[in-house]
Formats: sequence, C-alpha cells, structure tokens
Amino acid sequence: MSTLANYRDHLAEIGKLSSAASLLGWDLQTHMPPKGGAYRAQVQGKLSRMVFELATSDELGACLAELRQDGSISPLEQASVRVNGKAYDRSRAVPPEFVEARQIAQSEAQGAWVEARRTNNFPLFQPHLEKMVDFARQLAEYYGYEEHPYDALLEDYEPGLTCRQLRAIIDPLKAEIVPFLRRLATEGTPPDRTAFDGEYDPDTLRQLSRRALEIIQYDFQAGALDDVAHPFTTVIGPGDVRITNRYPTDSPLPSLFGALHEGGHALYNQGFTDDLYTLNLAGGASNGIHESQSRMIENQVGRSRPFWQFFQPVLAEYFPQFAPVPTETLYRASNVVAPSLIRVEADEVTYNLHIMLRFEIEAGLIEGSIAVADLPKRWNQAMKDYLGIVPPDDTQGVLQDVHWSFGYIGYFPSYMLGNLYAAQMLPKIRKDLPTLDGDLRRGDLKPLLGWLRENVHRHGAAYEPNDLMERITGEPLNPEHFVRYVTEKFSDIYQL
Amino acid sequence: MSTLANYRDHLAEIGKLSSAASLLGWDLQTHMPPKGGAYRAQVQGKLSRMVFELATSDELGACLAELRQDGSISPLEQASVRVNGKAYDRSRAVPPEFVEARQIAQSEAQGAWVEARRTNNFPLFQPHLEKMVDFARQLAEYYGYEEHPYDALLEDYEPGLTCRQLRAIIDPLKAEIVPFLRRLATEGTPPDRTAFDGEYDPDTLRQLSRRALEIIQYDFQAGALDDVAHPFTTVIGPGDVRITNRYPTDSPLPSLFGALHEGGHALYNQGFTDDLYTLNLAGGASNGIHESQSRMIENQVGRSRPFWQFFQPVLAEYFPQFAPVPTETLYRASNVVAPSLIRVEADEVTYNLHIMLRFEIEAGLIEGSIAVADLPKRWNQAMKDYLGIVPPDDTQGVLQDVHWSFGYIGYFPSYMLGNLYAAQMLPKIRKDLPTLDGDLRRGDLKPLLGWLRENVHRHGAAYEPNDLMERITGEPLNPEHFVRYVTEKFSDIYQL
Repeated sequence: MSTLANYRDHLAEIGKLSSAASLLGWDLQTHMPPKGGAYRAQVQGKLSRMVFELATSDELGACLAELRQDGSISPLEQASVRVNGKAYDRSRAVPPEFVEARQIAQSEAQGAWVEARRTNNFPLFQPHLEKMVDFARQLAEYYGYEEHPYDALLEDYEPGLTCRQLRAIIDPLKAEIVPFLRRLATEGTPPDRTAFDGEYDPDTLRQLSRRALEIIQYDFQAGALDDVAHPFTTVIGPGDVRITNRYPTDSPLPSLFGALHEGGHALYNQGFTDDLYTLNLAGGASNGIHESQSRMIENQVGRSRPFWQFFQPVLAEYFPQFAPVPTETLYRASNVVAPSLIRVEADEVTYNLHIMLRFEIEAGLIEGSIAVADLPKRWNQAMKDYLGIVPPDDTQGVLQDVHWSFGYIGYFPSYMLGNLYAAQMLPKIRKDLPTLDGDLRRGDLKPLLGWLRENVHRHGAAYEPNDLMERITGEPLNPEHFVRYVTEKFSDIYQL
Repeated sequence: MSTLANYRDHLAEIGKLSSAASLLGWDLQTHMPPKGGAYRAQVQGKLSRMVFELATSDELGACLAELRQDGSISPLEQASVRVNGKAYDRSRAVPPEFVEARQIAQSEAQGAWVEARRTNNFPLFQPHLEKMVDFARQLAEYYGYEEHPYDALLEDYEPGLTCRQLRAIIDPLKAEIVPFLRRLATEGTPPDRTAFDGEYDPDTLRQLSRRALEIIQYDFQAGALDDVAHPFTTVIGPGDVRITNRYPTDSPLPSLFGALHEGGHALYNQGFTDDLYTLNLAGGASNGIHESQSRMIENQVGRSRPFWQFFQPVLAEYFPQFAPVPTETLYRASNVVAPSLIRVEADEVTYNLHIMLRFEIEAGLIEGSIAVADLPKRWNQAMKDYLGIVPPDDTQGVLQDVHWSFGYIGYFPSYMLGNLYAAQMLPKIRKDLPTLDGDLRRGDLKPLLGWLRENVHRHGAAYEPNDLMERITGEPLNPEHFVRYVTEKFSDIYQL
C-alpha cells in the first residue's frame, strides 16, 4: 500500500471510531435514560482511548513524516497533512500521564464548579481552578510557543492567531463599543421589549424551529432536530449532522434564534465535501469561523429587517397573535440592546464585551499577572467598566461559564471572533449578491447559502482563519467591519 | 493479573464495543437521517469486526481453556465460561473466509428477497435461498452435531434443544390445535370483531403505550420508548434497555400489544443483574425464553379478562368511547381467532401453526428432503392443511418473512417455544401467586414481576432453557400446558 493510501486508511479508521463516539455523545444528551449514564461513561472512555491511540500511533507519525516531504500529493492532501500533522505533533508532545492526571482533575473541577455555582461559593472552586490554570500553563509549555504561552492554547481553537493579535483587535473594538453602548442607553429610543411576551406551546415552538431550519436550507434528509437542555450541533458522520434545541415557553425568540444559530453551524457541516471528510478536514477552519456561520444565520439573517418582513407571516401561521403587529415592532423587539449579566443571553452589541473581559482574565492567568483568588473582584470591575452593571453574586458572575472548569483556556475568543468574521464577510457578500435583501424578503436563502458553500464551507479546515478571511475579503481579520455593522444597525434601530 | 481477571477484562472490552454497536443499530432504525446510512454501514462494520476479533482472540481462548479446569471459580463464573466458551468454540470453528463470503451472499439475498416480495416473484429469490441453504448446511458441518444438522443451527437460538425433541413437541401439538381451530370455526360464537374499529390519533396511542409500559413496571429511568417501522427492544447497556413501537391508526390494539410484547422483553433485560452483565450472561437463556417473557406480558397478562377489567377505564382515559362498552366485549374482541396468511398478525391459537410449517420446511431443506424450488407448493399445501387457507400469492406466502434471506435457519421455532414456555410457567405462577387474577384486576404487576425476576430474569443465560424450565416447573418443556391453556381460554371466549 502506498504511504498516501496508508495515511487515508488511518484517517478512515479514526473517522469511524469518532463517528461512534459522536453518536454516544449526542445520545447521552438527547435520549439516554439516567440509569444508563454510569456505563455510558465507560463506553465513551473506551472509544476515546482507541481514537487517541490511533491518532498518536507511530505508524501515523511515519506516514505524516513521509507525506510532508511529498510534493506530488494534491493541495487538499497537503492541507490534510499540515492540519493533521500539527494535531499529531501536539498530541505526541503531551505525556499520557499528564493527559490522565488532567482528566481526573477536570472531572473533580467540574463537580466543584457545579457545587460552587449552586451555592454561590467561589472559594470552593478556587483551588480547582488554580489547578486547571497550572495544567493549562504546563500544556502550553508542552505545545511550545514563540511569544506568549496563551498562543499555544489559542491554537486549539483559532489556528495561527496570537495573543498579541487578539489584543490589537480588542483594544480598538472596546474603544468603540463601550461608548456606543453608553450612547444607546442615554440617547437611544429603545424598542418595545414586551412585543414577544406571552406563554407559548412548546410543540408549536418546535414546529416553528423546524420551519425556520427548512427556510435556511438545512437538509433534514441529512440531519435531525432533537430536544436537549443545552443546544448544540454535532456531526455524526457524512450525511448526518444533527441539531438540538430547547423551547422556553415565555417567548418564541430563544428557540427561534437557537434554531437559526445551530442551523448556521449545521449548514457549515453539511457543506463539507466527501473529500474533506476522508482527509479529516471536515471540522471547520476554526471555532471562530464556525461561529461566524452560526452568527451569520442567527444575526445577519435572522435579526435583519428584510428577514422579518418575510418571517412575520410565517410566525403568524404558528402564533396568529403576531399577524396584526407592525413588522418594525417585531424587528426592533428582536434587537433589544441591554447590558446583562449572562454572556449567553447577550445581544449583538454587548456580547463581545463579555468575551473581552474573559480574554483579559485568561491571558493574565496564563502569564501570571492575575491570581485566581482575585477573579471575582476583577470580573465585577470589568463588568462595571464595560457594561455598567455588577453581578449581585458570583453565580451570575465569574462562575457562570463551564469552560474554565475543564481548563479550556483560549476558547472564549472564538465566540467574539465569530461575530467579527461574519461582519467582515457581509460587505463582500453584499457586493457579490446585490439582491441579498430582496432574497431575504422572499425568504430565499439559496443564494446566500451558495455563497457560503463556495467561499467558506467547501474549504473545510484547509485554510487557517486569517488566510481564509484574506482569500474571501482581501484582508486579514479587521474589527472595523464589525464596528461599522453594529453601529449602523443599532443607530437605526435606536434612532440615534 | 489472574486468568479470571483477565477473562473478565476481555468480556468488559467486548461489552463496551457491543454497547456502542447496539446504539448504532438502535439509532439506525429510530433517528438516523436517510443520508447517514452509507457511512453508518461502514461504522457498524468496523465495530462488528472489532467485537469479532476480540471474541475470537487467542488470548480469550487461553483464558477459557484455563478457567474450564478451574473448580475454584463461582457457579455463575462457571456458567459464564460454559456459555461464552461454547460461543467461542463455534466462532473459531468457522473460517473467516466463509463468514465473509456468507455476509456478501446474505446482502445479495436480502436485496433479491425485497425485490421478489415486491414483485411476487419467488424464482427471483430461489437461487439466493438455495445458496443460503448451502451456507447453512456448511455452517452446521463446521459447528458439528450428533444427530441432525438442524441441531447445530438450532443451538444459536435454543441451546441444548434438538430437531428430534422439536418434532416430539410439534406432532402432538399439531394434533390438538388443528382440530381445535376447526371446532372454534364451526361451533364457536366469535367475538364482535368491530369493537375496536375506528380512527385513532397516533400521539394519544403513543401516550397509551407509555402508560401500559408504566403499568407493567417497565423502568423509564433505565429505558426509552421511540418510534420505528418494525418494533424491537434493544439493550444499549446496563441501565439502558430501549423499546420501540409503531402506531397504526385504525385500531388501538396493535400498538398496545406491541408495547406489552416489547415491554415483556424489556422487563427481562432490565432484570439482569450487574453480575450477569459483567460475565456476559445478560442475553437471556434462549430466544424462546426471551419470547416467553414477551408473550407472558402480551397474552397471559394483556389479553386476559382480569387485566381488561383493570385496563378498560385506563383506555377510556385516552379514548372515552370505550367507557360505556361492556368489558367482556373488549376482552373478547382482543382475542379474535382467525386463520390469517401473515404470521406476525396471528392470534394465540394459530400462531404456532405458522411456525410448525416453517420448521418442517427448514428441517427438510437442511436434511435435503425438500428442494427450494418446491417451497411455494409445500408452503401453500401446509397452510391449507393447518389453517385452512391458501395465500393468493407468494408475497403473502413463502416470501413474507425476512429470516431466510439472511440464512437464519433454526430461528423460527423460538417464536413457538416462547408460547409454550409461557404457558408452562403459568400454572406454577398461579400456584405461587394465588392472588394473580386479583392483582391483574387492580393493575398491580409487581407480584408477577417479582416472580419473573426471581425465577427467570436473575439467571440470565446461566441455564439452558430446558434446565431452566425444569428448575421452575419441575419438568422439561411439555406442550400439554399450552394446549390446556389455549383450549380452556378460547373454549370460554368462543362459548364452546
């Protein structure tokens, strides 16, 4: 067998086991009965170990070493060797004992976080978080970095991006958004926030989510929509990309925008070609690019005026009370800007501020300039500075996110970058698709999806995010696009 | 590590991979989108191969060889070594090339069967069935047998039972049931068959199935009920035994009895102790004993008069039209006896006749006394002799079941044996639980479930079916119990 065939075989075996592991994970959150949990953990552990063994095997390493020198393979194969080779090197750089010790500590930290959050007791979580930070710093050393240890961690989520670049993006962004938020609050005319208040039947909300997914061209023949406590999208395999959603009954918006958000992720995954799957490049260019696809559908489409012009009669099919309401009222009410304590509930203007404060804390933790013990104070001060509100307790403050309990440091920026990437793509989309607003007014998402398929989806992970952005927009990540997008949109809505 | 610990480890690894394989199979039939099918087949193939490799490994063989001589291990461990050792020997007796060639032929035969059934074209299926019979005969030679090659195949489904024993059961059974069926038809007063006619909402039927499963003490904390085209029950792992059902809308009975039937299987699986799971004895004593548990709940409980006395008001909660109907009408209408062409729709009296004719054909095929080409003729003649009706075409005759297209020969008898085992257990249950009818009238299934747990479930596959029956009832399988049960019950219903 040729080295290339051997390499592809290796990826295929990893792919099949990963598919089984994905299904186990999806089922755990959607259908598994409570008493199945203990054994499920064992089964998942077994599958993870097998995947890890294959993904770090000497044989795969030998294939990669040879293929890295092989100029005769196709560009996509070269990208596969580059991306998978980097992942291989990083996995091999970490001693198995370290991985195991960290997993045990993660599990303990996770339990402590749940309890600390429940009882608003940060000191309970503190020693675990300190351990997690130590593990993260050690991990950065294993991975290696040129400038800042944070760079080594960021690589997992946003390949090629550095702490320095992030700071260069965040500083001007903060300088624009914080005052703009103040202007909205002091000079703006806020939308009617009560337009969607009511009590909604969850079955009807579920049907509405299905309908919204059909509108955005999500392929139900290659997917499914299931109920879950915390929505996510998962790839079971080629032809099988599943969405989950939840249905709070006091407003149609959370489930609607949840469906559109997860649907955006799913469209990306459904857009990967078979080639990308077989070469293990079907994971998206980065977490941030993945998030750009979900934000694009959720915000640039779902929270746009032309889409609401199309969508209002659709909504009224399910909830007739919305038929007589002025479209503008619904559009504006789906775009309320309000500083809030909880990141996941944040609007388009404030969302990135939540991320900035997390990034600044993370970078400080990793470089040692911030102590874990000081986190509640730092958190609350930053909330006050950026958003003008202070959490009444740590449960609604520094303890709100699960990520740090797993030691996932470097993850949060992707949420912000998704907003920036999407906003940067939009002017190019408008240029290539001058009828975009008209398409949205007719509920025709096909032209937009076609553009995303052609410019984003079909490349999978073959390009790093900045290279992809340059390819698409002619420049690397530039936060000005987001600033322009958000100030124009909300100046209009708030009648500044 | 001790040999015993090594053996247990081996079983644990097989168990975890089998659990993942079970979930893949369950998902394939319940939630997987159509476009996920091609890749799913690859993932399932991979898992199956891994399970097969572990289950036939030299290392496992060495453990088994040593433990077979080890008198110090517990009785349950000895049973595990006996049962798993037999399975190991049988798997190792078959050359891998044969397994592979058979799998390919199975897949082709299955396709041909679907097409032959669709177009009522037996000759299309004939050469494939001939191949399947050849494979089955060859398989019997690999497995080895003392008296009849059919015995070697039967062992997969009904350990310890022989073709000779089956004939000795079937002949007197047939001699009783065939004339009794004639008497019912000529002298009996048939129930009102229209009592359940109507159009039923599938969601309400689904709720009714859930309720019925709660009544029989199915543990939803360790299970789930999902929709499917062809109902089945599957064990994902300890604490996770799932039921599937379908909801035809022209009668509440198929989904109700489907739920009770699958629920009976599920109670058996939920009754296996952790010990049985870790020793790979959690599969049931045999297919027939498994079927006895489903038949017990479906027929001895669900189609009994006392249960209907309890269940009528429950049914009326979901479908109020049944509140004023006399209970006796519902009880009798759920016990209509009518010779029918299709096995899966057969009633308690005629069901076994469908099996007998299949067994006689199978035994003849394996010993070479019946040619595949003659099957339609043989089938129709037996239908006429036993049931008094002749299929108008092969689609409703010899082509109706999928089993032979997989070369599963020896499988059908378990369906009949389940009825016989259940009927033989019943007098002993009545003796041990004199208040059984009163319990059923109150909808209290706990005493019966307790009896089944104690006498059947907790033993798993530790005893062969005949040993288990002797243990429980003091005698090996004896068809007289079934004859008595069915003639008493239906003489009463048909007022003979």
